[in-house]
Amino acid sequence: MKALIASVVLGLHPYNTAYNKQIFSLREGIELNSVKVGLLGFGTVGQGIATILSRNGDEITRRTGHRVTVSSASVRNTAKAVAAASDAGVNITITDDSASIVNDPEIDIVCEVMGGEQPALDLCLAAMANGKHVVTANKALVAVHGNTLFEAAQKHGVMFGFEPAVAGGIPIIKAVREGLAANAIQSLAGIINGTGNFILTAMTDQGRDFADVLDEAQALGYAEADPSFDVDGIDAAHKLTILASIAFGMPLKFDELMIEGIRDIQQEDVVHAKALGYAVKHLGIARRRETDQGAAVELRVHPTLIPQRQLLANVHGVMNAVLVEGDAVGQTLYYGPGAGSEPTGSAAVADITDIVRAMGADVSHQVPPLAFQADALQDLPVLSANDIESGYYLRITAEDKPGVMADIAGIFARHNISLEAILQKEPDPDNAADKSSATLLPIVLLSHRVQEGVMQAAIAEVEALASVPNSVILLRVETL
Amino acid sequence: MKALIASVVLGLHPYNTAYNKQIFSLREGIELNSVKVGLLGFGTVGQGIATILSRNGDEITRRTGHRVTVSSASVRNTAKAVAAASDAGVNITITDDSASIVNDPEIDIVCEVMGGEQPALDLCLAAMANGKHVVTANKALVAVHGNTLFEAAQKHGVMFGFEPAVAGGIPIIKAVREGLAANAIQSLAGIINGTGNFILTAMTDQGRDFADVLDEAQALGYAEADPSFDVDGIDAAHKLTILASIAFGMPLKFDELMIEGIRDIQQEDVVHAKALGYAVKHLGIARRRETDQGAAVELRVHPTLIPQRQLLANVHGVMNAVLVEGDAVGQTLYYGPGAGSEPTGSAAVADITDIVRAMGADVSHQVPPLAFQADALQDLPVLSANDIESGYYLRITAEDKPGVMADIAGIFARHNISLEAILQKEPDPDNAADKSSATLLPIVLLSHRVQEGVMQAAIAEVEALASVPNSVILLRVETL
Repeated sequence: MKALIASVVLGLHPYNTAYNKQIFSLREGIELNSVKVGLLGFGTVGQGIATILSRNGDEITRRTGHRVTVSSASVRNTAKAVAAASDAGVNITITDDSASIVNDPEIDIVCEVMGGEQPALDLCLAAMANGKHVVTANKALVAVHGNTLFEAAQKHGVMFGFEPAVAGGIPIIKAVREGLAANAIQSLAGIINGTGNFILTAMTDQGRDFADVLDEAQALGYAEADPSFDVDGIDAAHKLTILASIAFGMPLKFDELMIEGIRDIQQEDVVHAKALGYAVKHLGIARRRETDQGAAVELRVHPTLIPQRQLLANVHGVMNAVLVEGDAVGQTLYYGPGAGSEPTGSAAVADITDIVRAMGADVSHQVPPLAFQADALQDLPVLSANDIESGYYLRITAEDKPGVMADIAGIFARHNISLEAILQKEPDPDNAADKSSATLLPIVLLSHRVQEGVMQAAIAEVEALASVPNSVILLRVETL
Repeated sequence: MKALIASVVLGLHPYNTAYNKQIFSLREGIELNSVKVGLLGFGTVGQGIATILSRNGDEITRRTGHRVTVSSASVRNTAKAVAAASDAGVNITITDDSASIVNDPEIDIVCEVMGGEQPALDLCLAAMANGKHVVTANKALVAVHGNTLFEAAQKHGVMFGFEPAVAGGIPIIKAVREGLAANAIQSLAGIINGTGNFILTAMTDQGRDFADVLDEAQALGYAEADPSFDVDGIDAAHKLTILASIAFGMPLKFDELMIEGIRDIQQEDVVHAKALGYAVKHLGIARRRETDQGAAVELRVHPTLIPQRQLLANVHGVMNAVLVEGDAVGQTLYYGPGAGSEPTGSAAVADITDIVRAMGADVSHQVPPLAFQADALQDLPVLSANDIESGYYLRITAEDKPGVMADIAGIFARHNISLEAILQKEPDPDNAADKSSATLLPIVLLSHRVQEGVMQAAIAEVEALASVPNSVILLRVETL
């Protein structure tokens, strides 16, 4: 942090009634603290950060009292990055030597926006070892290597921000970590993958199939050529891992999440859900549970039926939203763009302004990265898939014969599973074929909350019935 | 801030993989920083604060490293407060001497939850003069006397928090001030009065009239015996004044707001709005505008038609929500309970934890109360009602005679107001009365965006038509 020849000029006494409209201006010759940011990567998010700090530089100086600028960025393809910087109208040094960023004594804050686990991890650790504060937009990095990074940040007395890693431009990390600090967080449930929500929204509104909408999402650039991170739930699981840790004050446990994607969602189930008053959304859910063995957490990512009137059910397209329930505040929800150059850049620059404000203050004055003091984290166990509790939507394809429904209902009764709704399509009496044997009809059931292991045992018995030739379709239901 | 005989016990090395489930416990004999809170008032919100700090005390110590407790509260009726404290299970000193709170050398933070402008203002100023940090849930106090309070806080080097004054438990002040710090905020629009939203929700969903629902709101305790603060928009205007200041970095200008309540909303207009795809919501709107005379702001509170698919249109009952648009992030929305003991208490305790973390650090490390450095506020002029721009919903009651529609359309055309939709109920041909003279029919119009002064001039001409006997009903339309 060095002095620059620019400054805030004090126009009039603060909070005076007669303000000067020109109260704020920059001029040469007066000292202003200058903070330099180095970028690792200069793709979509890196360009967003540079553009925001350039366009809103004066506004940010009005907020923080400091002048924050991007000095340089490291990339693999320098020619492309030079062209992008020129297009964006930002004047920064482009290099292909990432070590020069993390070792540059002029740089105060390193922003990692290159993605991937390596070399991102080593570069962040090197930057921290050099006394630089680090901000990252890399959810995989934080979810998988966060415990290592938090330890390194603490060891070197630097700050580590990762607001842009979760839900793009929504300041959800700050909301949970600081805004809801009064609360014991009970649960959170979020639409935290925009691509998945785009696909489910189109399947719901337009009656289209998964594969068809995925093609469109790829054509629009929402989904990668290999869409598995998005549609198989890995990306949402990375973000949920991070959210759960700051909500409950527990270490990151990405490996222990229950993860299901949306690849197998069928149009037929979207239609049945709608008829029952539900929308199908791909949610990341974290919930604190008191068990016989003590406090534990459910951490799960899967397609979920939620009531249509719930605000989350009305989050459409690529938008993200997170519902957070605290014991004092009740339910709060945070909505916004989950990705994109400037939205994600907005989150990164918010972390940068927090760091700029706190630079030089004792570490005791900082908000700890996982919301709780490092020595006060709790190792809450993650419940296995069999131990979660949920409501269930089941679609059973059964032969239309007398006694089938009684057999099925008997199985659920023996497992003490109570049913909330049953949708059974009556066979068409005018259709002669329906009167012959082997007509298959769908039976749709909604259950009350039950332990997943109990439900799976019941389903195994249903699938063993001779009159049920196909696998049972299972989706979880949350009333939130 | 004094040492207490209780402490965080460090169980294992932070971020170690093998955590101890009992890592955190309190025991005697080791030092822990203790922070004492004094309450001015012990009503709904005060009790919420005391309950939260008691129930979640350990959780808050895990977050901040400090033990935060309420030591005392001042009230008018001590017997009632002693009973309430006993009911809540909180052990605090109750006094009828508010001076003893603001002068108590043991108290670090004073929480003003008594309401009203005086003596709240003098007590807050006295607390600040005594070097105490202040948190208030009092929107009228901040909206009307905030400039004085900010100046006093700066003068005495203390912090001043007012998160609980706006939108109850939603951490909206923090989101706008810190979470969106990267942005030049363009606009915000919020449902920031729960009582009003309860009434409009019931009018929409149940087809009931204003007066009928107001009676119910009063019976439920949502509305005061004198409901004017809520239904005439004063309460929402207080909150909008505060939000606008932190969004745009401008001084508080409560006196310059345009304010309309919901008292005159008729069931007929709610029905027409629905038919056109809109919901009627009471919004506080702040928007930055570039005018020929430079930057200015619209600050207005009024009933507003918004598209039904908008998330804000799906905020029901007493819940609050604020939509914020920034130049980098785009649209974000924040939703939650706008009032209540623990929700508002949650916001107060969040401010308290922020203060606890920052206590002892230089003021340069703190977030300035109005989001911008005190010497960098901008005196943005507030546009007069005639100068705002909006879409409009008009209901004109006109005689069903040839040429009336042409007269009306001609007036709007002459004022260069383009119409987006016209709903005209056709007279019933089977009804002989309709064929005679003087049948009055409603004509509903939606206009594109136009300056309010232009629209008002056109309406004056419409109302001067002989075929238009009644006043024109006007509501503003925002597509957000």
